[in-house]
Amino acid sequence: MENPSRYLDALAKEFTRLPGIGAKSASRLACHILKMRDDDVFSLAGALIELKKNIVTCEVCGGISDSGICSICADKSRDISMLCVVENAKDIITIEAAGGFRGYYHVLSGLISPLDGIGPDELNISALIKRCASARPVEIILALNPTIEGDATSLYLAGLISPMSIAVSRIARGLPVGADLEYADSATIIKSIEGRVRM
Amino acid sequence: MENPSRYLDALAKEFTRLPGIGAKSASRLACHILKMRDDDVFSLAGALIELKKNIVTCEVCGGISDSGICSICADKSRDISMLCVVENAKDIITIEAAGGFRGYYHVLSGLISPLDGIGPDELNISALIKRCASARPVEIILALNPTIEGDATSLYLAGLISPMSIAVSRIARGLPVGADLEYADSATIIKSIEGRVRM
Repeated sequence: MENPSRYLDALAKEFTRLPGIGAKSASRLACHILKMRDDDVFSLAGALIELKKNIVTCEVCGGISDSGICSICADKSRDISMLCVVENAKDIITIEAAGGFRGYYHVLSGLISPLDGIGPDELNISALIKRCASARPVEIILALNPTIEGDATSLYLAGLISPMSIAVSRIARGLPVGADLEYADSATIIKSIEGRVRM
Repeated sequence: MENPSRYLDALAKEFTRLPGIGAKSASRLACHILKMRDDDVFSLAGALIELKKNIVTCEVCGGISDSGICSICADKSRDISMLCVVENAKDIITIEAAGGFRGYYHVLSGLISPLDGIGPDELNISALIKRCASARPVEIILALNPTIEGDATSLYLAGLISPMSIAVSRIARGLPVGADLEYADSATIIKSIEGRVRM
């Protein structure tokens, strides 16, 4: 096999570093780049560099930010009584995209996972406790993934925060909207029955 | 909805210009970029710019190239008796990746499509005829997509080249390898019977 351009090869190889992009998609993307207008490609390349150069960690929530404090933490119109704890900055974007939550966030930057050598000290937990003590939210919502690590971290955080007289909740488990009981796994069905809600 | 970073927003928007990448994938890619090492991101951005700045059209085949003549056209070890005609430069990469063909290529840069206002004059056909006259290949293989435009272009080219005493063939139509007769469409089944081969 011969490839007529090493620049095309190089770009395709770079694309394969991205998640969900295999050799074939990478080659298709690289060929698409070839056909794009120069300006559009330069603006994509520029956006990549700008992101890496300018993004910082928010001093308050530990999420991503363009300046010292992120736009969500700086937004005084949000509900100060609710603090939503998430695993990583991407989860903030996901929850914001869904809409409906108007409180603040706190990013742990990971989950407790002894097998991977990640204990509570490796996570952004001490800042969370300080924030609970100073901002005194009414409720902490733990929005961690429903996995063993997520559950272990939720239990650990509940043990730390509950004694501070702050309500601690975790997001519900059950059938996703639009799902079919027939195709749901048994663990989800059990959780949905355990978590049943009065009508 | 609030997004904590306009740089992240900007990059995600750039990603949605690429084929097969919707808003959600774009956001996931942008978040992945955040986690990548600076060097890796700069090298991706660099590869994008390098590609756009350096790639040219091969003077011989009309495909892509890093210099005046592409590496395939410059490779004297290939089989000069076979010339494979393709729609675009990407098809060369696809055929080369499959391996097995050792001749040269010629890129039409499109297909005859009167509805889109593309006639023979808009395509890289006169260069093909000149090449046939000078290089005198034994066989021209038309490897165009099995669509109405591909068939029309193949017929047109066969009409031009056959009088030059050069054999003209087109790639076979039939069941793809690994396919199941039960799920094949009827047009493909008919083509596979028409194109049956003696065993």
